[in-house]
Amino acid sequence: MPDKTKWKGLQCPIPLSKYPKIVMAHGSGGRLTRDLIQHMFQPVLNNPFLAQKHDGALLDNPKTKIVMTTDSHVVRPLFFPGGDIGKLSVFGTVNDLAMCGATPRWLSLSLIMEEGLGMEILWNVIQSIGEAAEESNVNIVTGDTKVIDRKGEGELLINTTGVGTLDHDQSIGPREIRSGDKIILSGDIGRHGIAVLSSREGLSFETEILSDCNALHRIVLDLLDNDIPIHCMRDCTRGGMATALVELAEESGKHFEIREEVVPVDPTVYGACELFGLDPFYMPNEGRFVLFVPESGAEQALKLIRTNNKENPACIIGHVDETPEKSVTAVNAFGGRRRLDLLTGDQLPRIC
Amino acid sequence: MPDKTKWKGLQCPIPLSKYPKIVMAHGSGGRLTRDLIQHMFQPVLNNPFLAQKHDGALLDNPKTKIVMTTDSHVVRPLFFPGGDIGKLSVFGTVNDLAMCGATPRWLSLSLIMEEGLGMEILWNVIQSIGEAAEESNVNIVTGDTKVIDRKGEGELLINTTGVGTLDHDQSIGPREIRSGDKIILSGDIGRHGIAVLSSREGLSFETEILSDCNALHRIVLDLLDNDIPIHCMRDCTRGGMATALVELAEESGKHFEIREEVVPVDPTVYGACELFGLDPFYMPNEGRFVLFVPESGAEQALKLIRTNNKENPACIIGHVDETPEKSVTAVNAFGGRRRLDLLTGDQLPRIC
Repeated sequence: MPDKTKWKGLQCPIPLSKYPKIVMAHGSGGRLTRDLIQHMFQPVLNNPFLAQKHDGALLDNPKTKIVMTTDSHVVRPLFFPGGDIGKLSVFGTVNDLAMCGATPRWLSLSLIMEEGLGMEILWNVIQSIGEAAEESNVNIVTGDTKVIDRKGEGELLINTTGVGTLDHDQSIGPREIRSGDKIILSGDIGRHGIAVLSSREGLSFETEILSDCNALHRIVLDLLDNDIPIHCMRDCTRGGMATALVELAEESGKHFEIREEVVPVDPTVYGACELFGLDPFYMPNEGRFVLFVPESGAEQALKLIRTNNKENPACIIGHVDETPEKSVTAVNAFGGRRRLDLLTGDQLPRIC
Repeated sequence: MPDKTKWKGLQCPIPLSKYPKIVMAHGSGGRLTRDLIQHMFQPVLNNPFLAQKHDGALLDNPKTKIVMTTDSHVVRPLFFPGGDIGKLSVFGTVNDLAMCGATPRWLSLSLIMEEGLGMEILWNVIQSIGEAAEESNVNIVTGDTKVIDRKGEGELLINTTGVGTLDHDQSIGPREIRSGDKIILSGDIGRHGIAVLSSREGLSFETEILSDCNALHRIVLDLLDNDIPIHCMRDCTRGGMATALVELAEESGKHFEIREEVVPVDPTVYGACELFGLDPFYMPNEGRFVLFVPESGAEQALKLIRTNNKENPACIIGHVDETPEKSVTAVNAFGGRRRLDLLTGDQLPRIC
């Protein structure tokens, strides 16, 4: 757990001597629930929508189409190199909105806590949520707090649901993918999976691998502002890059060809994958996406993404071809071809 | 568990001989996750928004203000007399939107399942969600599926987040409450709490108590269509009627006086409360609300609510007065006065 004992000068607002851990009554909807909301959640997540204190939040008149997405986060451990469940919860939903081409605006936050969860852990996570919301320029507008009886080690599960506005006319989605489209990957893959795995198993590598956990909406809005003709985007989360591509191949009815050797994987990540017998193509990420653009826009898109993410450069990893199959073929440096499939089984449980 | 083996002619779409229970890989984002979504969730929750199969759902252009609310449901047992976690998840969120005066439109659905959850249990719950969504005239537009490792008895937790549209100009909320307002309660209280408690403890009463679990948006839209000048509404869920009133007194800065003897409580519910040492005023409900209207509109509002709920008649239980205190006073038949407070501790854990 990182040292985050103050939020803009505010210490943990619940007296730790009295409530060092969450108790069932924190979820009863009564006084203790209200104390958590008023004293801990509201000051950190403060915005006029949340301040309405009603059963729901009355939002602005969007004057445009809106996009809605939801994600529950169950990652273990709650804190890992480069992030934590709070950051993940905000960025995960912000990214899903961004992938639809929407500007993220409003998030709901629902906490399910197990009795016994450390109060300081909760306080740390709430602060992360506050920071991530500020960074993503979204408001947490409504929420819910539940406590379940103890079975494990102070479980914390977080759902965030997001609503964004569609502030342009471009149609973005799997059905817009066309033959000839270039496939761009926004950065190197596998960091989030290895970061969580290593902190769960107590492993350390020569170079510390940080999760790539990050908000993607700025890059996407930048692409849109520069009139890049985006056909489709998808973030490479659970199931990794391979699963995202296979899903899109099936949904678009197209065939993709990927060049294995150009897919960037950090050497330490690659080594860790070899050690555990994991395939980097299927490793979860929390700040990487694939982008489909016609060839005419590919170079400019690449340049814009590289400006946003200098350390882990984007590259063109393949293209959409005319092969009449809804599938993904990976071609290696020696010309060997393998068909990528959806993840079967579960490489890494509770990764996000 | 009720006998719900078919959805419009469809048997449980996952082969039970192969997958009698949820396994971790159902939450991996790979093939098994997709099988659940495509074969079980999509056919039941079918609508054009969900069919977009993207990271988020592109919704209509609302052309009006929108309202957003969220609720996670952790009720135990999953099935209880008069309802189940699926019905509760939809109606709970629909009702929160209704309480803001919004027309419920779009819901997200996020399932967190524990490894070992029975597949048929899931299938039953999904069908309940489908039925409740149809009944409430809302679409489940986007979703998420997670599986956590086994610690209990096949836990199932459901988050629904709802977006509704505000199709009128009335300003509804705690700040609109005025001195002189009549306080209407929409029906008898305590049923949901006793229904869940009795099924959890394996108790039976002479008369079976069914949960009041129900959608409230029709009554509310009916009130609005008839130009009832609604000042505020709140559903009496966790913490019961008393907690809802105390919250509203604090948020509005007003004092409410309630006449105890007119608050309707079913005799069996009353008896059960006495037996367990519970206060019906604090018993959870899932289909009851309090309504604040000026005296001029009270009788007509009462008539409209009674038309919608004939069995459990609404009544005027009190009023807002000029006392300069943000609190609620309950006056009994003998003139005795007690100040109602927020629920302290937890009368009934995991009730919704």
